[in-house]
Amino acid sequence: MNSVAGTPKPPYYAVIFTSERTEKDNGYNGMAERMEQLANEQEGFWGIESARENLGITVSYWKDLESIKKWKMNSEHIMAQHKGRSIWYKNYKVRICLVDRDYEFI
Amino acid sequence: MNSVAGTPKPPYYAVIFTSERTEKDNGYNGMAERMEQLANEQEGFWGIESARENLGITVSYWKDLESIKKWKMNSEHIMAQHKGRSIWYKNYKVRICLVDRDYEFI
Repeated sequence: MNSVAGTPKPPYYAVIFTSERTEKDNGYNGMAERMEQLANEQEGFWGIESARENLGITVSYWKDLESIKKWKMNSEHIMAQHKGRSIWYKNYKVRICLVDRDYEFI
Repeated sequence: MNSVAGTPKPPYYAVIFTSERTEKDNGYNGMAERMEQLANEQEGFWGIESARENLGITVSYWKDLESIKKWKMNSEHIMAQHKGRSIWYKNYKVRICLVDRDYEFI
């Protein structure tokens, strides 16, 4: 949990979700945990990394665009997206990326 | 500074740098600030986002692979990379990505 994700060799996909939160929790932490658990159950999900200071960054890794599309359309996730826009986030940006190369220091 | 980066329309590139730090500062914060300042001066640099809890995530955005290559080879940045491996980081992973699509909520 919350360490550098052990993804397979590229190419694979990343979804970079960058956000600024509203002040109050309003169930946010419970939702975030549930979404991570739910993402873990999706086919083609390969890992997640997240950190928050005033800015929050969550990067999830996926086998292909089809897996990302299915995750976006997951009904419970759709509800969280709606609540996100109305309650939890001041603003956010989502970027869908093809990871072309990677290297690491361990 | 440290808000959702205002990048132009895709396609463009992202470098996702995920790391776990060692315990002591040893000049880390000064270096991190300097590297952000220096990145800002590079041609083709389009923004940066970062957050750290136990895991640190920094995503920088670039016009093309050539800009990323030049930044990687910047002499002051190379020194920071060496010190990073010997002093500041327990481990890290770098992923070079093509940002294919993005959308936002403002």
